[in-house]
Amino acid sequence: MSVKVKPTFKRPAPWDEVAPQLVDVAMGRAPADLVVRNGRWVNVHSGEIIPGTDIAISKGRFAYCGPNASHAIGQGTKVVDAGGRYLVPGLCDAHMHVESGMVTVTEFVRAVVPHGTTTMFIDPHEIANVLGLEGVRLMHDEALAMPVNVHVQMPSCVPSAPGLENGGAVLTAEDVREAMTWENIVGLGEVMNFPGVVANDQLMVAEIAATMKAGKTVGGHYASRNLGLPFHGYVAAGPEDDHEGTAMEDAIARVRQGMKAMLRLGSAWYDVASQIKAVTEQGLDPRNFILCTDDSHSGTLVEDGHMDRVVRHAIAQGLKPVTAIQMATINTAQHFKMERELGSIAPGRLADFLIVSDLAQLTVDEVYGRGVRLAKAGKLEVDVPPYDYPAAVKKTVKLGKKLGAEDFDIPAPEGANEVRVRVIGVIENQAPTRALEADLGVEDGLVAMDRENDVCQIAVVERHCGTGGVTNCFVSGFGYMKDCALASTVAHDAHHMIVVGTNKRDMALAANRLGEIGGGVVLFSEGKELALVELPVAGLMSDERAEVVAAKAAKLVGAMQDMGCTLNNAYMQHSLLALVVIPELRISDVGLIDVTKFEKVDLFVAEEGEEAHASS
Amino acid sequence: MSVKVKPTFKRPAPWDEVAPQLVDVAMGRAPADLVVRNGRWVNVHSGEIIPGTDIAISKGRFAYCGPNASHAIGQGTKVVDAGGRYLVPGLCDAHMHVESGMVTVTEFVRAVVPHGTTTMFIDPHEIANVLGLEGVRLMHDEALAMPVNVHVQMPSCVPSAPGLENGGAVLTAEDVREAMTWENIVGLGEVMNFPGVVANDQLMVAEIAATMKAGKTVGGHYASRNLGLPFHGYVAAGPEDDHEGTAMEDAIARVRQGMKAMLRLGSAWYDVASQIKAVTEQGLDPRNFILCTDDSHSGTLVEDGHMDRVVRHAIAQGLKPVTAIQMATINTAQHFKMERELGSIAPGRLADFLIVSDLAQLTVDEVYGRGVRLAKAGKLEVDVPPYDYPAAVKKTVKLGKKLGAEDFDIPAPEGANEVRVRVIGVIENQAPTRALEADLGVEDGLVAMDRENDVCQIAVVERHCGTGGVTNCFVSGFGYMKDCALASTVAHDAHHMIVVGTNKRDMALAANRLGEIGGGVVLFSEGKELALVELPVAGLMSDERAEVVAAKAAKLVGAMQDMGCTLNNAYMQHSLLALVVIPELRISDVGLIDVTKFEKVDLFVAEEGEEAHASS
Repeated sequence: MSVKVKPTFKRPAPWDEVAPQLVDVAMGRAPADLVVRNGRWVNVHSGEIIPGTDIAISKGRFAYCGPNASHAIGQGTKVVDAGGRYLVPGLCDAHMHVESGMVTVTEFVRAVVPHGTTTMFIDPHEIANVLGLEGVRLMHDEALAMPVNVHVQMPSCVPSAPGLENGGAVLTAEDVREAMTWENIVGLGEVMNFPGVVANDQLMVAEIAATMKAGKTVGGHYASRNLGLPFHGYVAAGPEDDHEGTAMEDAIARVRQGMKAMLRLGSAWYDVASQIKAVTEQGLDPRNFILCTDDSHSGTLVEDGHMDRVVRHAIAQGLKPVTAIQMATINTAQHFKMERELGSIAPGRLADFLIVSDLAQLTVDEVYGRGVRLAKAGKLEVDVPPYDYPAAVKKTVKLGKKLGAEDFDIPAPEGANEVRVRVIGVIENQAPTRALEADLGVEDGLVAMDRENDVCQIAVVERHCGTGGVTNCFVSGFGYMKDCALASTVAHDAHHMIVVGTNKRDMALAANRLGEIGGGVVLFSEGKELALVELPVAGLMSDERAEVVAAKAAKLVGAMQDMGCTLNNAYMQHSLLALVVIPELRISDVGLIDVTKFEKVDLFVAEEGEEAHASS
Repeated sequence: MSVKVKPTFKRPAPWDEVAPQLVDVAMGRAPADLVVRNGRWVNVHSGEIIPGTDIAISKGRFAYCGPNASHAIGQGTKVVDAGGRYLVPGLCDAHMHVESGMVTVTEFVRAVVPHGTTTMFIDPHEIANVLGLEGVRLMHDEALAMPVNVHVQMPSCVPSAPGLENGGAVLTAEDVREAMTWENIVGLGEVMNFPGVVANDQLMVAEIAATMKAGKTVGGHYASRNLGLPFHGYVAAGPEDDHEGTAMEDAIARVRQGMKAMLRLGSAWYDVASQIKAVTEQGLDPRNFILCTDDSHSGTLVEDGHMDRVVRHAIAQGLKPVTAIQMATINTAQHFKMERELGSIAPGRLADFLIVSDLAQLTVDEVYGRGVRLAKAGKLEVDVPPYDYPAAVKKTVKLGKKLGAEDFDIPAPEGANEVRVRVIGVIENQAPTRALEADLGVEDGLVAMDRENDVCQIAVVERHCGTGGVTNCFVSGFGYMKDCALASTVAHDAHHMIVVGTNKRDMALAANRLGEIGGGVVLFSEGKELALVELPVAGLMSDERAEVVAAKAAKLVGAMQDMGCTLNNAYMQHSLLALVVIPELRISDVGLIDVTKFEKVDLFVAEEGEEAHASS
């Protein structure tokens, strides 16, 4: 039987304010709210598993953990028999983006709590690119209303590539200083501009300094395999963790330098198995290793889980279960200076814990947050009401006009019959692209696509200011074989709209459709809408259930396959093609960008000895 | 060649302020101040020892740690060849009282730096009992002037036993709140009033809450073997560490509850060997174990060392050297939320490190603090000028009058020829005393001592307010066989003056002598001064060198032996007899105290059926 309760989700009072009550319960002078009997205490402090443990909870916090808590049972005390099952601290995700699930914080929480996640450190980088500081504040406040702990990292690099794109917002050092005063901001989100960091870029220096001054945690993001001087320079600048390592050597290098190695298992990230060998094979002290997801799609959450999936995977790599659990509990808490608040089952801490029947498989039977049972047997037991967004948040797709097929015309240089153009080459399962070239025909003065050779059009449609601006280029790799177009307002990191199509009329229809509904992902073919995922919140997130979003996304993938696109994670790849910080060739609202040189390049390839000329 | 340099001892600028310079050094764009080449990096983050490591230092902080720092060497860079020796982070003492060394902070630092201690967390509990908040501030400020890191814990229990003694000062919850705003206060000092804590004593609750609210560390002190409910109640109240454990079970219990087990090796504390078995035999995660000294006499510092002695001892118990070093470096730093500032050799941290030739023996060849070489081959190389104390600090012994032998008279009840009295029984090598009784004769209306049976007099002489008050009782166990008296203004915790003597004239002379010189320990026999340790600073500390103090203390011990006192640590035992928080029988300015019942008792033992009558 699943009873729906509607708690207020107020964060419990600080330990110092309820300490006398906790002492009374521990001493047997007052009854606990809840006593769980006969558990195996997965003790992340000592590294032991201690059978025969009782825990007593009061005011949302652990008051007593030890043998026989019968002295804490009184009238009104709820008693649960763990029956020898494991008592595991609630799992923490050390770094993640809610937006990657294409659902709101509320719906993300609803999806992951049954999997045992009770703490998330979220970096609302995507909404920040659309709505700026206001967007961060929105998720910050939504996070505070949750029945579990959702803490926020202030995005550090908005826009990601100043000068190469114009996003919906700019975050300044002043914004960072401001955000550091908010109660639920735990630090600075992944400092991605690592070339800027090692060049002492003024903004990066100021943001990091503001975070350190506030005594909060500076998140890192050193996405390079170069472990030489730039790596050392990056460390000296102050970032405290990094989740961009992929090889064992990356993890070792980070830990040696006093950083935390955050090992990532996301929907498309598989960085745990290789890096965890630093512990299982090289014997490094595990305390500086932390597990996280970074990016999880709704489908992953619904089908595979969240941090339970990561811990299970880490155990499967040969880690002792308690060590893997430490990496998703106390290590994370300690990193964010919250080890007295969460991350373990011990007196004073928030009573976030799981009852687990199989430790190696991390079978989560029951989930408690702040002393309240939130889920049982994979089913949420509390009602988490939808968060009330200001109307403006659902009206962020401003096209400025109704687009027509002609907005996607690419005029050829005057008099040309054939042109050589630069083409963005998608690489399956990889974030980088290839800088390709193609010879294309000219029809009625316009450059023509080449479906035979999988060269179709890609456009970035300005959507933040309603300028009506459209940037047109070519892309290869999706394999579309029919007249169709896919449009998405998830378009990292500036989150304009990316439209990829083999047919300009479908491109216009798809773009206009997203303009109407406030954003999402939509597929059109021959004038008909084949699939749609509505993402009205900032054009990034649905406010529907994760399972609904996952089902719509699955339908979209199916429809794309019908159009000939068999690329893995195709709509994800689509959404990354404007990410002008990852090589080699990308598109932004500014034009075609060479991300090896960080400069705008011409669509048309200049002939030997010929001067380059503007493409627009 | 030992070059004397006179640095300003200004604490280096915060990492965030010098980060751009550190990055420049790491990247090879600016020269380091100091490069140490070819060391074996004792990496307390990864738990590894990494040969072939260079470290580059700038602005007092590590800028680069890794292979080959030649890119950081420029004009003006000092280069040191470690010749394959170990590079060890400077050692941290997690909990200690400077006053136990009977020297000032300055002299303590001078004594311990050559042994590799570069960080101390001091609890100025003794001076607080004499001078209150002003005394704490004094040591706080002196600490800030040091060339190494001396951080201060705010004393929590002053007086230790309200109602049973009147000390020189009272610290209130308001004082604690005030101290938490001082830059060099890291937390609350050992919360010794554990019965008060588990009873939710208002002052204890308020002090702990103030410390938690300030985000600082609550030091614990649970001096009981009872690991039942009172222990759990104590944990629930918030103390974060404990150094009072003595058995392996104590350490295990503390770590399981999320506390740090601080293992203590002081001059008279031997608590490491038994408790470290929790790691070496039971396999507990070592990260929550921390080493400290608590109390070191000058003699120990001069002859045996300080934290180097503790680490060496821990290694000898079977710990891996790097694990033992973690317990005296990064574990400590993390506990005080300073792991980004000290406790490891890693970029951004203060450049506090040792060059060590034999790791297991911890042979400290060179000591660097904040990038400056402070000591080599056991010799200090920097000049640490004496701290300038306000005059009042050296005038704290106020007797109010010149004492005479008659002040030590103990009148017998009227008409009595023989009396039965309570006698404080000293137990060798233990802090507790025994509550003895003795039948004593009466001469001229005064109770007589019984030298044959080792019963002599003990007095507490009021010295804070000049009341002229003297409390007289009897003591047994020192074994004095001649006419003599020992007086000491080190008289835990209220630090009045304790005088023990076989002869009242010598008692008066000894007391008056300390009144003249502002405090210390002095031995008189037959009207002559046999030995003296001057402790003019609050009557607790000398401002002479530790080796001078150690020599004077050694002379004192010799003279006491000449008087027949062969008790181990005799003058230490003497100084503890007014410590009215440790059973069984003690003396204070209030009278004779039964510390099993926490109440004042009569000197005279009431006969069966007879009413008790006042002794004074």
